[in-house]
Amino acid sequence: MTPRGFPVSEFRTRTEHAQAAMEQAGYAALFLTTEPAVRYFSGFLTRFWESPTRPWYLIVPATGDPVAVIPSIGRALMAETWMADIRTWRAPDYRDDGVSLLADTLEELVPEGETIAVPCEIETHLRMPLADWQALQALLPRRQFTGDGGLLRRLRLIKSEAEIAKIRTACGIADRAFARVPEIARTGTPLSEVFRRFQMLCLEEGADWVLYLAGGAAEGGYADVISPANERPLQSGDVLMLDTGLIHDGYFCDFDRNYSLNAPVASHDAHAMLIDAMRAAVDIARPGKTAADLFHAIDRILTGGAGGSDAGRYGHGLGMQLTEPPSLIPEDETELAPGMVLTLEPGIAVGGGRVIVHEENIVIRETGVEWLSTPYGPRMTEIGT
Amino acid sequence: MTPRGFPVSEFRTRTEHAQAAMEQAGYAALFLTTEPAVRYFSGFLTRFWESPTRPWYLIVPATGDPVAVIPSIGRALMAETWMADIRTWRAPDYRDDGVSLLADTLEELVPEGETIAVPCEIETHLRMPLADWQALQALLPRRQFTGDGGLLRRLRLIKSEAEIAKIRTACGIADRAFARVPEIARTGTPLSEVFRRFQMLCLEEGADWVLYLAGGAAEGGYADVISPANERPLQSGDVLMLDTGLIHDGYFCDFDRNYSLNAPVASHDAHAMLIDAMRAAVDIARPGKTAADLFHAIDRILTGGAGGSDAGRYGHGLGMQLTEPPSLIPEDETELAPGMVLTLEPGIAVGGGRVIVHEENIVIRETGVEWLSTPYGPRMTEIGT
Repeated sequence: MTPRGFPVSEFRTRTEHAQAAMEQAGYAALFLTTEPAVRYFSGFLTRFWESPTRPWYLIVPATGDPVAVIPSIGRALMAETWMADIRTWRAPDYRDDGVSLLADTLEELVPEGETIAVPCEIETHLRMPLADWQALQALLPRRQFTGDGGLLRRLRLIKSEAEIAKIRTACGIADRAFARVPEIARTGTPLSEVFRRFQMLCLEEGADWVLYLAGGAAEGGYADVISPANERPLQSGDVLMLDTGLIHDGYFCDFDRNYSLNAPVASHDAHAMLIDAMRAAVDIARPGKTAADLFHAIDRILTGGAGGSDAGRYGHGLGMQLTEPPSLIPEDETELAPGMVLTLEPGIAVGGGRVIVHEENIVIRETGVEWLSTPYGPRMTEIGT
Repeated sequence: MTPRGFPVSEFRTRTEHAQAAMEQAGYAALFLTTEPAVRYFSGFLTRFWESPTRPWYLIVPATGDPVAVIPSIGRALMAETWMADIRTWRAPDYRDDGVSLLADTLEELVPEGETIAVPCEIETHLRMPLADWQALQALLPRRQFTGDGGLLRRLRLIKSEAEIAKIRTACGIADRAFARVPEIARTGTPLSEVFRRFQMLCLEEGADWVLYLAGGAAEGGYADVISPANERPLQSGDVLMLDTGLIHDGYFCDFDRNYSLNAPVASHDAHAMLIDAMRAAVDIARPGKTAADLFHAIDRILTGGAGGSDAGRYGHGLGMQLTEPPSLIPEDETELAPGMVLTLEPGIAVGGGRVIVHEENIVIRETGVEWLSTPYGPRMTEIGT
């Protein structure tokens, strides 16, 4: 069992790396509003973000420790983290929901004429009311807001050993749950029941939460990989797929497994080709190669290099979020580097509007790849019919 | 078992209500980016929103059906809803992640010089990259973007009978899981194990997902109501609280239960006072009363009318989200109306920095209140020690 949380040194290192990059870019502060961004610097871990009512703010100044500007309901929990400067207001407040407290704090931390950076690129959003964002800018006419130029994205791309250990634990839990799927799925079991029982297996094997589960089951393949369960009973001839993002200590795994219920030979062949494609990416993955290189290694086998499918990519980053940068697409020239955690997710059409998708989780090391999920073989596990 | 999903008539009614309000306000379109907003009009239900990579857009025009502008990975699932006009791009696209497709669609649906409304007030955010939001506005210089003035908030405040049935089912599942807590919790059980086993009970009793669980256990009360589990074993003298937001068919319940492990008399007295306070709100809740009236009914009993606590409110709306408008605070003059689903959530300090919080779910009816959760009695259930 890996220890919960992180030593304070982890957060200090993250803050120092951010501040070094901020100095280079000329930012006087980083302004953060989303769950993973706030947690990355503070360690503030709660499911309370599921409530959309309250905004939560964190500021990383050019020097010194981060400052939290949060609703008073979160003070006790934030005080358990390494954060020392915690400023609160009683939310919800219809006249001023933390905006003036936030403006005062930024005024104090950021000298006049200087720049406050905000993540604004692809895969980001601003988790605060748009009207409050406009009000905040109006309250700070002598400070400049700008995009962070991908600063936070680059910081989070490389995981520490402590982060990798949490993802590895999450993957191990999913490995054990996937191995037990034959206990809960057979001909006649409705897919909705498989979903429910699979989540219970994940919890029994040690998951904190099962925040993501998608899947499908139909003759030879399935229509897509993002659907919730339907009530259709499993039938002989089906391929059953389950794709889970379960959580251990705030970190996700994200991989799937396909199972055969006397599936047609063509489905087995397609699955074996996916494993080949995934292995082709593993074979070349090492520091210096790019996300695009992994895309092409997979695509060469799946489409002969035609350029992918409507799914849009063959894998992505993974960590505090189910999906993170980079994307395995031809346009992503992100260089692989030690500590980068990735999913490899080749998919293939099997006719009749159906697909089969396979997924594994890896971490890039100095000399190649370390598996985080236990790699699946070319032959889908048979489930009793 | 309530049927899954909604008849198309439900979505048509929602769209008509939106369009009537839009006409009054002079909006040519409503521009939506968040999961509940997109689902409210389309019925698009997937856990894939857990991935922050891709934006999803929905436009409600002044006349005609809504239009979806979404990544191609979602086409198959969106095509299963009533939506007929589905426009897709292959995401992620680093040069143009749907922005020009979105701008073209808005240009087609919104005449020059007219106004596009966007939810921008408290409890909302814009789920798209800030840079893309700026690019979209720049691409549409002859259209005006404006806040929606709470239009969507007002629409969603009143639930249909079909929505209420889903919330009632979710509450029933949680009722049954709470009744079984004595099976999984006793002196010596670590709180983390209680959390894990409780989620399994929720799934066994029929939950689709258990997206929210907070709680605590300590001598006589607990430090806050938003913490995840720690590893501390339950001890004699503890009050154990579990607060769950589980999902049935896309709708939440949100209520808690307190349990005593030989808790002190003062804790039982505090709990009984919470039940009195909650009942005082139930006694006056009917159409014409306000959210503020419910706050004061509760606060009169808990603090003698001193004005609440750091938690900020004594309850809130509930539905597709764990927390929705209105808020039970003195400033919320929202009039209660039939079909409004609320939580009543009084909390009280018990000394030593500890609190006890109680919560029930109700729906406002013509003549008063219908319970959605099965109301708890003044005496906390005793758990074997």
